[in-house]
Amino acid sequence: MSKLENALAACAENVESELDRLLPKSDSPEARVIDAMRYATLGGGKRIRPFLLTQSASLFGVSESRAYRAAAALEMVHCYSLVHDDLPAMDDDDMRRGRPTVHKEFDEATAILAGDALLTKAFELLADPATNGSPDVRANLCLALAKASGDHGMVGGQMLDLVAEQTKLDIPEITRLQRMKTGALIAVACDMGAIMGKASEHARQALQHYAHDIGLAFQIADDLLDVEGSAEEVGKRTGKDEAAGKATFVSLLGVERAREQAHMLSEQAATHLEMFDEKGEHLKELANYIVTRRK
Amino acid sequence: MSKLENALAACAENVESELDRLLPKSDSPEARVIDAMRYATLGGGKRIRPFLLTQSASLFGVSESRAYRAAAALEMVHCYSLVHDDLPAMDDDDMRRGRPTVHKEFDEATAILAGDALLTKAFELLADPATNGSPDVRANLCLALAKASGDHGMVGGQMLDLVAEQTKLDIPEITRLQRMKTGALIAVACDMGAIMGKASEHARQALQHYAHDIGLAFQIADDLLDVEGSAEEVGKRTGKDEAAGKATFVSLLGVERAREQAHMLSEQAATHLEMFDEKGEHLKELANYIVTRRK
Repeated sequence: MSKLENALAACAENVESELDRLLPKSDSPEARVIDAMRYATLGGGKRIRPFLLTQSASLFGVSESRAYRAAAALEMVHCYSLVHDDLPAMDDDDMRRGRPTVHKEFDEATAILAGDALLTKAFELLADPATNGSPDVRANLCLALAKASGDHGMVGGQMLDLVAEQTKLDIPEITRLQRMKTGALIAVACDMGAIMGKASEHARQALQHYAHDIGLAFQIADDLLDVEGSAEEVGKRTGKDEAAGKATFVSLLGVERAREQAHMLSEQAATHLEMFDEKGEHLKELANYIVTRRK
Repeated sequence: MSKLENALAACAENVESELDRLLPKSDSPEARVIDAMRYATLGGGKRIRPFLLTQSASLFGVSESRAYRAAAALEMVHCYSLVHDDLPAMDDDDMRRGRPTVHKEFDEATAILAGDALLTKAFELLADPATNGSPDVRANLCLALAKASGDHGMVGGQMLDLVAEQTKLDIPEITRLQRMKTGALIAVACDMGAIMGKASEHARQALQHYAHDIGLAFQIADDLLDVEGSAEEVGKRTGKDEAAGKATFVSLLGVERAREQAHMLSEQAATHLEMFDEKGEHLKELANYIVTRRK
């Protein structure tokens, strides 16, 4: 494994045990919702967002234990969005990470509630003094995450995605959709690290430029996998954008130009990290990893 | 109208205009989710929780404009819970406040997203410096609301409610269910007022005892309305607990004893407010109103 792969694996392991600790099993009669929250968050995922958060935080010397609490909160928001997105009324997906989706393993009502509870728990964690001693940092973490994941961010992007099933979008519209749907949470991952580290405005901006580029690169790579990957490799249903008649970067640009665009963005992303010297090495490598991954 | 009814009407009007201002119409392509958020929150409801919050805040001299921002956030959480609760996979209700429910007026996907966005927006508002100048207060508001509305509060109660369709609950179990499902949000309404007012621990506790009693009284009154009210009067489908075979306070205690219990709790609630003298008058009257209302 490369140094980056080692670091990603270590991060995934830490996030896993942090989530396990923060969502303890229960034998109360309502434990079903907790079981579903655990099922939705544990046992997999690339944990790209936690990696971005903890790596960004490390640029500013934030302690690992605190960074991982915030990272777990962020991952809960990502996972809740997947649970709701997979519902029959939304994307209607039966498989995720090679396993039945939450509403298939439990039922729809439990999936709705588990998603709601994960979103709520994320803010509970961020607002908790155990995450950060400074109330200012805690309030800013809540504010940043809420803005990124609400109607002007991720949820707005999901709405746009549904609208896109009826309207053919062009490249600027698709770019806006993806900036909201997936880019906002990737950007806030880096920003939460900067907030915890009380970063200078200059450093915070540099990270935001980086996040902006990798967010788009990540999405183009995802679209390429949807076209080129097999369900077995990727762990979820592939070919579904085309089947749904949705415009994507790949359908609009073609495979070759989309791949070039992703690589160009990945290289551009790395240039924004120069001020961090070798401390930014993992983030630079991640920009490359994102466009070369096979799932 | 009594003084209380005037105060309730004034509060409802203020909450309405605050929500209207905080959820501005948009002509962006994703505006559908904003339209649904507005539909879910505007144009009705008793606004009991905002009333509790603003009245509690006024005990400690909190400015009205700040209290109403927090009250709007709390009402968004209440409304999101109704939107998700009404979904076909949950309670499957077509009518709410005399109008089609959100998934009937829009569609299921939009209803899921609008609920998610309202929950998220609530935390965005509470974490925003415009709501309170003290980061400590902002973080504590987020923390209190998240605890009350998550898996150990409201969402846990909704899960219990679904479980209750399969299992006959007894009085202690129903009490726990209702404390979580509706009591937690009523209690946090009072607590958010105390947090904004930097209340003493003594005053905060007194309000919590009050909230605990009216929360239960409110639920028993709701169960009585479900049995005795017509759908037209109440504005939503009635008789549904009985149809679903769910145990309620009324099915377990009978109408007469349930009514007595509600009145007893209402009187007990008022006694906890003595330390606030005449400043607590509206809250005392509310305790009585809650058990005598016709919808």
